[in-house]
Amino acid sequence: VRALLILAHGSRRRASNEEVRELARELRARLGPAYQQVEAAFLELGEPSIDEAIEQAVTAGARRIVLFPYFLAAGRHVAEDIPAIVRACAARHPGVSVELLPYLGASAALLDLLTAELAKAAR
Amino acid sequence: VRALLILAHGSRRRASNEEVRELARELRARLGPAYQQVEAAFLELGEPSIDEAIEQAVTAGARRIVLFPYFLAAGRHVAEDIPAIVRACAARHPGVSVELLPYLGASAALLDLLTAELAKAAR
Repeated sequence: VRALLILAHGSRRRASNEEVRELARELRARLGPAYQQVEAAFLELGEPSIDEAIEQAVTAGARRIVLFPYFLAAGRHVAEDIPAIVRACAARHPGVSVELLPYLGASAALLDLLTAELAKAAR
Repeated sequence: VRALLILAHGSRRRASNEEVRELARELRARLGPAYQQVEAAFLELGEPSIDEAIEQAVTAGARRIVLFPYFLAAGRHVAEDIPAIVRACAARHPGVSVELLPYLGASAALLDLLTAELAKAAR
């Protein structure tokens, strides 16, 4: 069983956290059988925490957990906090594969998207 | 003269802010004549601030300023702080068109990108 966790910063504004949960629901529908679970998880100010989400995924039977940092720049959260959380969780679950993907801002496809959208906005 | 400002949160980690400045440089090269100026600006923890960047653009001759919130979710920064800064700047420069674009996370194209990249990661 393969789980995908969308890792977001979290906000004091509830609608912002709900937006990330809605993204996770939409991705679950779109990704189909690639992942049996797709959930949002928050570094702070949102539920569940990344720790909690990993525990829930393991309890639900996940043996491969893919973590996607939904962040645009590699600030301390991306560079330090998230890798530390992931290392600790992986150590607690030696039988589970825990894979941390590159953060969204590192995607070459994102640069193409920005170029296209901002060119449109200039018209 | 048309200026584009990439509005980011800003980080205590210098490399993170430099990453957004590098994005602005790359977009300037890719967008070509659509914008005469493309700069990064930071809500906090980075230089220049959004206020400063708008003043610099006006001083450099910009008469149309397009602001792109480089944010993934509509937390308080996107929902409240940035619109308030933009309203105040627009009021200070009645001869300048100041246009606030939707934030990145609201883009339908982003959902397509995420679906494609995360499907790839499952292979």
